[in-house]
Amino acid sequence: MHSFDATIALAHQGDGHFSGATHPDYGNMVGPFGGTTAATLLNAALLHPGRLGDPIALTVNYASAVADGPFQIVARAVRTNRSTQHWTMALSQGDEVAATGTAVFAARRETWSAPEAALPAGLPAADAVARMDTAGRLAWVRRYDMRFIEGDLSAPFDGEERPHSRSVAWVRDDPPRPLDFASLAALCDSFFPRIYVRRRRRVPIGTVTLTAYFHADAAMLAAQGSRHVLGVAQAQAFRNGYFDHSAQVWADDGQLLASTQQMVYYKE
Amino acid sequence: MHSFDATIALAHQGDGHFSGATHPDYGNMVGPFGGTTAATLLNAALLHPGRLGDPIALTVNYASAVADGPFQIVARAVRTNRSTQHWTMALSQGDEVAATGTAVFAARRETWSAPEAALPAGLPAADAVARMDTAGRLAWVRRYDMRFIEGDLSAPFDGEERPHSRSVAWVRDDPPRPLDFASLAALCDSFFPRIYVRRRRRVPIGTVTLTAYFHADAAMLAAQGSRHVLGVAQAQAFRNGYFDHSAQVWADDGQLLASTQQMVYYKE
Repeated sequence: MHSFDATIALAHQGDGHFSGATHPDYGNMVGPFGGTTAATLLNAALLHPGRLGDPIALTVNYASAVADGPFQIVARAVRTNRSTQHWTMALSQGDEVAATGTAVFAARRETWSAPEAALPAGLPAADAVARMDTAGRLAWVRRYDMRFIEGDLSAPFDGEERPHSRSVAWVRDDPPRPLDFASLAALCDSFFPRIYVRRRRRVPIGTVTLTAYFHADAAMLAAQGSRHVLGVAQAQAFRNGYFDHSAQVWADDGQLLASTQQMVYYKE
Repeated sequence: MHSFDATIALAHQGDGHFSGATHPDYGNMVGPFGGTTAATLLNAALLHPGRLGDPIALTVNYASAVADGPFQIVARAVRTNRSTQHWTMALSQGDEVAATGTAVFAARRETWSAPEAALPAGLPAADAVARMDTAGRLAWVRRYDMRFIEGDLSAPFDGEERPHSRSVAWVRDDPPRPLDFASLAALCDSFFPRIYVRRRRRVPIGTVTLTAYFHADAAMLAAQGSRHVLGVAQAQAFRNGYFDHSAQVWADDGQLLASTQQMVYYKE
């Protein structure tokens, strides 16, 4: 079993109550990687016997650091319509809520469709880009094969502010794993904090909320398989303790798989 | 009293339970404008006696059409930290949940700050742009003074698909009203459906989820007052029943007040 699957695994106790536990393979500075927390909250809805369709949108609010160890998730379908379903989720440890989430699921139908945003042109293929050395990095970073075309975090940080925070990188799970909605949700949190890229220095940070929109359906994810996807991320504003970023995750054939944004607390 | 304030008004019944009612001034095709629903959910947290700080992020999920008439909102601070507070909200009518929401509030501190995204250069000032004629439009549309620089909805729709869905417009409440967090939340849903702009035809649509990030603090909003803000919105993908848009709301001095995205159901 891929350790991503072990990390997001949940046991259903009935009535939307699930139990799970953090996994050392996806450890962060403190507690688990926020991407696997997002994927685990989504997984509660995915595993729920009342689930309708596939995920369209996911929002996860990181209320506090999740402690390493067991946790409980409650997932409720608060409204089920003909083709859409609205979920609320909460992850708690003991009596404390550590994360909340909402998700929209839907049964898609074939309609007029059109891309609008386009993947940057002229990018080198993943196998033409050097892989980031992850030796000595946080556990979760070692679970991704990241190949930066722009905006990497190569050390040492010189503290010289850059004009922008944009990163462009090919990314896939390591070991490779076929893409699905849960791993795509986790990928949406795999972009390093934009403030590190912009300022070229580390400051204390923590994501407070993340939203991901799934433009892909299951067939598009299956077609992507375990090949690298392209991630593009950039902040829009850094202001008095909070910055955002907007990001896109692209299939290697140029289709948009997901768009995502987050707000991140920072100090200094 | 401005009818926006009447629309988002809530009576606190205690313990985070609020009652409110839709208002004909902000009526939509069916039920109320989603922007005022978002603002009303945010207002429940703003009015709660246990509220800490100002809004940083808001997500609203539109689970079903809200019926014209009374509704109840329950707002809970599920976690209060030293400088952040995490909220969940639900709007119901009878036994049915019509909308859910989450919000992050925070007490900001002065830190290193920097813009990154920039307002498009060379735009005409609001008073140099013709106001959209709102005669015969939906009630909520008549509550905004919109001045389109690009991507308007002027009739008749010719059904000729355009290369992109971008709109750029100056917007303010009508009658003018000083900007605050609630009205900024509503403005984040004032962008017309991108599919109308792209396809130049009307199809059935409905926003299923909206997220807004507030880059502005109360002082920035006060400085903006009731002057027009600039809204820029564009879809990233239209695919099998759902399209997104990303948008920014800019102060007239060029500062980013809010960034927002939504996923919208469409038919055909």
